[in-house]
Amino acid sequence: MAIITLTTDFGERDHFVGAIKGFILSEIEDANIVDISHLVSPFNIVEAAYIIGNAYKTFPKGSIHIIGVDSELTPVNKHVAVAIDGHFFIGADNGILSFLANEVNPEKIVEINIHDRIKSVFPVLDVFVKVAGHISRGGTLEVIGKAIKKLKMPKGLSPIINNEENQITGSVIYIDNYGNVVTNISKRLFETYKRGRGFELWARNHKFTNVYHKYSDVVNFDTESVNKKDGEKLAIFNSASLIELAIYRSNLDTVGGASTLLGLKYRDPITINFI
Amino acid sequence: MAIITLTTDFGERDHFVGAIKGFILSEIEDANIVDISHLVSPFNIVEAAYIIGNAYKTFPKGSIHIIGVDSELTPVNKHVAVAIDGHFFIGADNGILSFLANEVNPEKIVEINIHDRIKSVFPVLDVFVKVAGHISRGGTLEVIGKAIKKLKMPKGLSPIINNEENQITGSVIYIDNYGNVVTNISKRLFETYKRGRGFELWARNHKFTNVYHKYSDVVNFDTESVNKKDGEKLAIFNSASLIELAIYRSNLDTVGGASTLLGLKYRDPITINFI
Amino acid sequence: MAIITLTTDFGERDHFVGAIKGFILSEIEDANIVDISHLVSPFNIVEAAYIIGNAYKTFPKGSIHIIGVDSELTPVNKHVAVAIDGHFFIGADNGILSFLANEVNPEKIVEINIHDRIKSVFPVLDVFVKVAGHISRGGTLEVIGKAIKKLKMPKGLSPIINNEENQITGSVIYIDNYGNVVTNISKRLFETYKRGRGFELWARNHKFTNVYHKYSDVVNFDTESVNKKDGEKLAIFNSASLIELAIYRSNLDTVGGASTLLGLKYRDPITINFI
Repeated sequence: MAIITLTTDFGERDHFVGAIKGFILSEIEDANIVDISHLVSPFNIVEAAYIIGNAYKTFPKGSIHIIGVDSELTPVNKHVAVAIDGHFFIGADNGILSFLANEVNPEKIVEINIHDRIKSVFPVLDVFVKVAGHISRGGTLEVIGKAIKKLKMPKGLSPIINNEENQITGSVIYIDNYGNVVTNISKRLFETYKRGRGFELWARNHKFTNVYHKYSDVVNFDTESVNKKDGEKLAIFNSASLIELAIYRSNLDTVGGASTLLGLKYRDPITINFI
Repeated sequence: MAIITLTTDFGERDHFVGAIKGFILSEIEDANIVDISHLVSPFNIVEAAYIIGNAYKTFPKGSIHIIGVDSELTPVNKHVAVAIDGHFFIGADNGILSFLANEVNPEKIVEINIHDRIKSVFPVLDVFVKVAGHISRGGTLEVIGKAIKKLKMPKGLSPIINNEENQITGSVIYIDNYGNVVTNISKRLFETYKRGRGFELWARNHKFTNVYHKYSDVVNFDTESVNKKDGEKLAIFNSASLIELAIYRSNLDTVGGASTLLGLKYRDPITINFI
Repeated sequence: MAIITLTTDFGERDHFVGAIKGFILSEIEDANIVDISHLVSPFNIVEAAYIIGNAYKTFPKGSIHIIGVDSELTPVNKHVAVAIDGHFFIGADNGILSFLANEVNPEKIVEINIHDRIKSVFPVLDVFVKVAGHISRGGTLEVIGKAIKKLKMPKGLSPIINNEENQITGSVIYIDNYGNVVTNISKRLFETYKRGRGFELWARNHKFTNVYHKYSDVVNFDTESVNKKDGEKLAIFNSASLIELAIYRSNLDTVGGASTLLGLKYRDPITINFI
């Protein structure tokens, strides 16, 4: 059974996702289609990279991941298929895949060239599903494209270390369903530069001096009742091993989450000073 | 494996969709259930018809499509099962299916009459899934209903051609996830009446004199940078072969889309003058 | 084929649900994963109980239902696996499952104790999926936990009968996709105490003296046109056999639904006086 996942900015109301699923089932009879997300903000490649990057790893090796974000074919937005970590990814070379390829070296990258046969206003359906079908039948990437060396890497999206190596300046890359604020500062980067020192993490005028390992670590269950810390702000290494700013048991629809309560939004700077 | 698709206005939060899926799996062991959309605006038959009409064609022949929009059984809202184009549709005879039957002649229409055995506040589950089970086991439509000749056709939803045949007056039938404004004027109708003439398409006080074949056709990549035309308005034949008004690389949540920027909404008139 | 359902407050945009599905497919090769809902309001156990309680019954016996709401393991929030009515439920002992166990006696309850091997910031993935895999392979609950007698039951969520037995005081437990207002007063409770008497149901200053069996019962099709009663308020026994207050053919986005038009919200009191 071929596992095909979908990560798009198509939303969930329109016919786009349904049409793609129908075409997948027509091309790949035993396809097991899994939705990762269709609610990526339109054309937001950082968000798309965060979502697919944190979702794909739990899937069995050999899974095929279609990414339908900013995927119209243009002279500056080529279509690629990439093998990384035993998984296959199909999408546009717009930066999303270079985030994934940054962590793990791709085994192979090809620029898809089956377009001569297919003129399309809807390439995720007409091109990406065709490529997925080819891969699912055991076909090699070389048949559907020519090997290339590198993916496009957008600038300005990684944290910066100062020369004294006592400061990391990162930024907000994602706000999740609970209003939690995810930064691009990884646990690994943080620990590489911490070197046993204390630290202050600043987000606007909010200071954090601890990074917890789970949300409820903020509560001392020996002496405190469970609701004592509801609404308290905390920093945590989240399940993606990135530093995340959260409000304990928050709810965006009622009391608000870290994003609204701390006044933080996508791309805001986050600074860590080691002291 | 029986493919059963679902198009409803049930939303995605409540238990309705889950309950239906459970019942499908109880009735049809090897069912492959595919969500088309559960975000149809409540009771909006035009929207439902646009979504299912554009999604079903990519599915394999023999697929069974359940439509749960405005489906309570009343003396004026009968339940029907329809075979069109090798596909099966189950829903209420409220106009949704007559849009589909308008394009391709139905092979068979039956008015479902298994209700004597089933009294239901939730007919999509109790009636439509039973019918889907029957069809998936190879049963004929005659067993679950009596053949009828015609589906109900709502009035006033098709574009109008004036007597001089130099003007088409259509309307907005759908606003998609990007804020793109979809009209009911098809490429075929447009080209039938264009006959080599120039034209002006008017939507409120906005004029369009070109209809592109893909979004990025608005950019001249030889002389222009890729972001040059971000936010520019354009008309396009969309993937459903209907004229659509769009904003290049729009985002409803930030800069806005065609619907908000051009001030267009569901049912607004669209006029094309051939000159 | 093992049926695994998911009911969570994770939302549909983030990577959480995708990551869980990937891990399920890695652990249970022939898993048939069904989404019940991912739009439970964060940490809202009443809503979660209403949704899963009304969805699970249509699934085949032996289905495994994972509940990812308020599931971080703490000293006061244990993880449990429960067999009820031939179904398996995996979640935190936070009250959700005690609602289900209230209707049908659980066949078995165990407190999950595989945590020594698993430290997790994301227990739905790391713990609940492991337990689901164990159950899907025919494993017994005793292997993954120790039997306990009772689930935690939150207080104050059941309707109250006065001493004279002429009044039921319930409350609003759910607002659905159409704005319909669902109460915690069941048809059974209502009929047990009605005993042939008349009644007045009060919701704020709105009075209802009838409870219908389907929405369109409010229309007399012999003498009234179908749209005559659009926008009329009514009470109905809904598909969950609970009393629900509705607006006939309502639409939250346009005319509004019962919740907005009657000014009712989650937890508001509902009173029935028998006279």
